Amino acid sequence: MARIETALTRALGITHPILLAPMGSAAGGKLAAAVTNAGGLGLIGSGYADAATVSRELVAAGNARVGVGFITWALDAKPEALRATLEAKPMAVMLSFGDPAPYVAQIRDAGAKTICQVQTLAEAEQAVRLGVDVIIAQGRDAGGHSGTTRGTMGFVPAVVDIAGSIPVVAAGGIADGRGLAAVLNLGGSGVSMGTRFTATKESLWDEAMKSRVTASGGDQTAQTRVFDIVRGAPWPAQYPGRALKNDFYLRWHGNEELLQAERTDAEKAYLATKPDDFSARVIWAGEGVDLVKDVPSAVELIERIVDEAASVLARGARMVRPA
Amino acid sequence: MARIETALTRALGITHPILLAPMGSAAGGKLAAAVTNAGGLGLIGSGYADAATVSRELVAAGNARVGVGFITWALDAKPEALRATLEAKPMAVMLSFGDPAPYVAQIRDAGAKTICQVQTLAEAEQAVRLGVDVIIAQGRDAGGHSGTTRGTMGFVPAVVDIAGSIPVVAAGGIADGRGLAAVLNLGGSGVSMGTRFTATKESLWDEAMKSRVTASGGDQTAQTRVFDIVRGAPWPAQYPGRALKNDFYLRWHGNEELLQAERTDAEKAYLATKPDDFSARVIWAGEGVDLVKDVPSAVELIERIVDEAASVLARGARMVRPA
Repeated sequence: MARIETALTRALGITHPILLAPMGSAAGGKLAAAVTNAGGLGLIGSGYADAATVSRELVAAGNARVGVGFITWALDAKPEALRATLEAKPMAVMLSFGDPAPYVAQIRDAGAKTICQVQTLAEAEQAVRLGVDVIIAQGRDAGGHSGTTRGTMGFVPAVVDIAGSIPVVAAGGIADGRGLAAVLNLGGSGVSMGTRFTATKESLWDEAMKSRVTASGGDQTAQTRVFDIVRGAPWPAQYPGRALKNDFYLRWHGNEELLQAERTDAEKAYLATKPDDFSARVIWAGEGVDLVKDVPSAVELIERIVDEAASVLARGARMVRPA
Repeated sequence: MARIETALTRALGITHPILLAPMGSAAGGKLAAAVTNAGGLGLIGSGYADAATVSRELVAAGNARVGVGFITWALDAKPEALRATLEAKPMAVMLSFGDPAPYVAQIRDAGAKTICQVQTLAEAEQAVRLGVDVIIAQGRDAGGHSGTTRGTMGFVPAVVDIAGSIPVVAAGGIADGRGLAAVLNLGGSGVSMGTRFTATKESLWDEAMKSRVTASGGDQTAQTRVFDIVRGAPWPAQYPGRALKNDFYLRWHGNEELLQAERTDAEKAYLATKPDDFSARVIWAGEGVDLVKDVPSAVELIERIVDEAASVLARGARMVRPA
């Protein structure tokens, strides 16, 4: 198969410029290890800075050189989770959704690569000042939580223009080799994918959830806070989550204050639904979901994406006619 | 300079795969002609299906082979504007923001190319059924009016996958050669740019507005209905407009019902502000605005973008290392 060498692969010492987004519900040690073993970088989702989750999933990752991703505002309440994580010597730590300043030096001093995911240009400027190893520019096209301000297409080149020599990774709306090739042309050095990896053999999601992903399209997703409100997850309002619209969404989206007021009952009802009753249960999904039509292994997926990107890049060059 | 040949350049018989978005306030005959004469396709904005505007701006375009863009819901109220336009033998007619079905055959029978801009995959499927010549996949990253459902990055490849042999053009968040190259790698055949063209010498915008565009960044834009409400422009709620956030936006966004109730007074106050008082006046701008830093002529801009895209495409191919 082909290889694509970028500033990201050189900075992290990986073979392919593909990161696994550290999704709390899907990116366990098994999937993270599979992504790393396939030549990318697997990042374990730490949930809400849950040291026990990290510890368990690092064990599940075995000897694979994986990283761990934190929700920064959750880490603020449980900073000991980072200390425990760093003792396990992860290859990298990713921070997103909050102020990374208190943590970057600690991560660097422990010998791990520092990866900051940003949702605005102001946050990208801060990451540059902090001297992180990798910046992920996440557009609101992404599944799960993201900002509302920026879309992937315009955000990536704008971040590249201020990042200097720091590699910029794109997240949001990317699920195949065309997306990887496009990001490289925007000046990015790689991609972070979430939704695409939820539908892999090694994902922690169950078969019913994976089937919903492969059967759904991007017109069906929306950013919303209702699934966080009902589950009592205290996400700041500027970070809604993109999910498949379902009956629960249709009932409560736009009625968030009422949902908050009736939360106790609503949560009971929500949790009483069967795990495969997706009229209520959330399935986080980004706009790349149109492109997700099967459930391959992580290694099959990564090889397919890199091969497709390589052929797309070669075809792109052939479109140019010298004057 | 380089040339980039795609299904779009072949379908429209143009030299460069770049379309001027038919912005009501900026894309007059002068700018449209400049874009066409530079090798792209200039599309005149018809305002709210205003036959007098079209007639005046077609005269301003002179002999240049330009097209005309319509807001479909506005055309529904004034279908005679299309008849008058077609008598002038435009090269192409673009439809966006409504149901194109009543108009496509009429445009085709008049010998003009049919271009449909779509904001959802369902609309793209309709455009394919209608057999239009070109589909523009517009993400919510775009300046001015757009849908809310889709971002450019994930939307373009999804539309490409259903478009068959119809060329797909991307709109939203694209303002330089990197964006053009990225779109080609997504499987698109060209780009439609609005914000980038507002800041050109031939744009109808005044110097104060162009200066605001070159000085602003993408973190400062938002989709909102407040500027439509205050001006009494009856845009359907699913099509907000992306503009630079200003004091007027901050006061009224989220208070749309109150603004509607107080519209008469609010409109008077809005119209009483000086034309260069941008604390109230709207400046439509998309997320590509970070990348807009100067006010070149249309021909300078198009040559720069094509040359940059050509070098980006060549560089992309060099990133690939055969195994």
